[in-house]
Amino acid sequence: MPRPGLCDDWSMKLSSRMLTTRPSPIMEAKTWLAHAPQGVSLLDLSQAAPADPPAPEMLAAMAREIVHDDCHRYGPILGNASLRAAIAARWSAIYGADLDARHVGITAGCNQAFCAAIAALAGPGDTVVLATPYYFNHAMRLQYAGINIRLWTCTAGMMPDLAALPALMDGSVRAIVLVSPSNPTGAEYDDQTLNAVFEIAKAHDAAMILDETYLDFRTGSGPPHSLLARPDWQEVFIHLYSFSKVYRIPGHRVGALVAGGKVMAEVEKYLDCETICASQIGQRSALFGIEELAADVARMRQDINARRLRLLALAAQWPGWTIASSGAYFAFAMHPFAAPASKIAKDLVTEEAVLVLPGEMFAPEHSDAGRRGLRIAFANVANDGLETLSVRVQNFTRRQDGANLA
Amino acid sequence: MPRPGLCDDWSMKLSSRMLTTRPSPIMEAKTWLAHAPQGVSLLDLSQAAPADPPAPEMLAAMAREIVHDDCHRYGPILGNASLRAAIAARWSAIYGADLDARHVGITAGCNQAFCAAIAALAGPGDTVVLATPYYFNHAMRLQYAGINIRLWTCTAGMMPDLAALPALMDGSVRAIVLVSPSNPTGAEYDDQTLNAVFEIAKAHDAAMILDETYLDFRTGSGPPHSLLARPDWQEVFIHLYSFSKVYRIPGHRVGALVAGGKVMAEVEKYLDCETICASQIGQRSALFGIEELAADVARMRQDINARRLRLLALAAQWPGWTIASSGAYFAFAMHPFAAPASKIAKDLVTEEAVLVLPGEMFAPEHSDAGRRGLRIAFANVANDGLETLSVRVQNFTRRQDGANLA
Repeated sequence: MPRPGLCDDWSMKLSSRMLTTRPSPIMEAKTWLAHAPQGVSLLDLSQAAPADPPAPEMLAAMAREIVHDDCHRYGPILGNASLRAAIAARWSAIYGADLDARHVGITAGCNQAFCAAIAALAGPGDTVVLATPYYFNHAMRLQYAGINIRLWTCTAGMMPDLAALPALMDGSVRAIVLVSPSNPTGAEYDDQTLNAVFEIAKAHDAAMILDETYLDFRTGSGPPHSLLARPDWQEVFIHLYSFSKVYRIPGHRVGALVAGGKVMAEVEKYLDCETICASQIGQRSALFGIEELAADVARMRQDINARRLRLLALAAQWPGWTIASSGAYFAFAMHPFAAPASKIAKDLVTEEAVLVLPGEMFAPEHSDAGRRGLRIAFANVANDGLETLSVRVQNFTRRQDGANLA
Repeated sequence: MPRPGLCDDWSMKLSSRMLTTRPSPIMEAKTWLAHAPQGVSLLDLSQAAPADPPAPEMLAAMAREIVHDDCHRYGPILGNASLRAAIAARWSAIYGADLDARHVGITAGCNQAFCAAIAALAGPGDTVVLATPYYFNHAMRLQYAGINIRLWTCTAGMMPDLAALPALMDGSVRAIVLVSPSNPTGAEYDDQTLNAVFEIAKAHDAAMILDETYLDFRTGSGPPHSLLARPDWQEVFIHLYSFSKVYRIPGHRVGALVAGGKVMAEVEKYLDCETICASQIGQRSALFGIEELAADVARMRQDINARRLRLLALAAQWPGWTIASSGAYFAFAMHPFAAPASKIAKDLVTEEAVLVLPGEMFAPEHSDAGRRGLRIAFANVANDGLETLSVRVQNFTRRQDGANLA
């Protein structure tokens, strides 16, 4: 992307690993908007970003907190003791586990939790296995750190393909990374599968990192999995979490990581060098959310699941399309065209003012998920938005000539 | 440090680079407090952490901002346009430069600005030159990334030793890193020296990173340096800055980086993967500070410089001690004892309840700065605190037997 007015003549060398790291797909997708039709309202289903403000009680709590002097001072590197304890207690209840505040670290968002976990586990030349379709920031982070990425293909239903995992494991693998509920597919990985991954990781002295950013919006009931209830969880497991979506506070940058004490000692070094501590007002807001907003979260969860069911009903009328998986914030639609998803996604913006992300941002471009998949962040819009989406996708599909159909 | 109750039996491997990275010196120093004498008030001059709350106008501005919906949403990866523009304009005035908002990136604190700059420039196996005494988080960050650190010794006055620099340069060097006003010594590097470093960096296609966290507290008048006014600055120079000290808002995590457009494109990838954006309320507070708090900053600067002069007058009475350099937030004292600074620092806690950081946290332990230096964050305390410090240091010195004197 040329930047007029900025100097392009220069001498200093840049990191070859960073230069070859792909820029943020979100940024790339936003550039497509220049071609969106005039006078048509944009339907932005690209980024999982809560549109609504935080709950009124949360706003009131922030206004109360912001006047306290401690709110403006450095906090402990691994997070405020009160928030760490609250997470340990709540997660112990959710997962049937017995967590201690020392198992919890607070980060400046869940992306940083991933960065900290990876920094604790792996260096250049080590290998990390990413379940596909993967979250693109995970791949970027590994790439610029010089960590080898080994992609683990999924089943047609966008579930981890357990049979394919053992062949990917060797002594260089430091971690297996999964996101459940999945970003981008919404798929919720079942407990049996997750425990099987745990066992394979353990057998190879590798870690298992599970990003559960969308935990609170899962469609199933009961504990999301039993991994944290295992007596050996600290030997293998690292859980990542985000407060951004559940309390609609992405602007405050608060996430968390649950891990054993040895991992946490290395995470502490990383956070000390990187951000020193997470935002104090963000941490206080997260604590308020855990303590007071259970009813708000339950409402939001129900509402988002209703949107998902509405989308599934509408998508059944899209000629040739299928929804490979859905859950929490996302649905992963498979388009019926010969052209790759990256072209279809751009055409959807240009012709119908619909912004979704193409599968090749999350999976190899020649894989089925990469070539045909489109991530729809359906939770961003209410039912009238979903109706509009459905009309636009059907109009778009009808306009494609036969040659473009697969 | 044993952590009872946490699992120590386990299988997963950790990053060898992170395991060999020294833990945070600040954390280590805080553990010494267990041995502080009972009933004596602690004089904590270890961390540069503003004790006072933000200005009342700033608190009022925060209360106004926190109710806006945008305050809780994601912001642009490189920072809010308004803050970037304000920094470009203000810095252009301070430095006699012609900066554009696109030259400015907002980070979650100045440590992250350093991390982002390094990630853009260097990978494992590359080399970075650190001017000694260095800021310890810089060294930690390079170490765990697998970047080779080449230490650049200083003069007896704690200034960069230009004659020693060319011998450190070769094709593997990606950056030369300096902090001015210095952390830990307070030394303010003069313009001629900084331009000479710039030329040496440029001749070797390397970057020059200057951390100016303590910019606002410098003792000199006029522009801090002329580097940003050079027509070729973007080819070589990267400036780092922190809003934490100047507006007393470290709990909000806002810093900045000024660099050319090509660096900024790589910085953007890094920030996207790491924290996505800096805290919104923090960014709005920084903008308010730039626009409205010039008088408050001028007062604080004058006040801190008065504390510095008071410390220098008091330290003249400490038998055998010298102050090698001072400025902005810090003074770098040289103790007169045979024992290394690490022992003296611990003894000062145990015997006199004075917490300062030993030179070996900032320089090789056998160098003069490492063996004899003690960093005093004098700006943390008012004049009565400095009087107490002086009495305690004199008591401590008188108690040392002859054998301990160098």
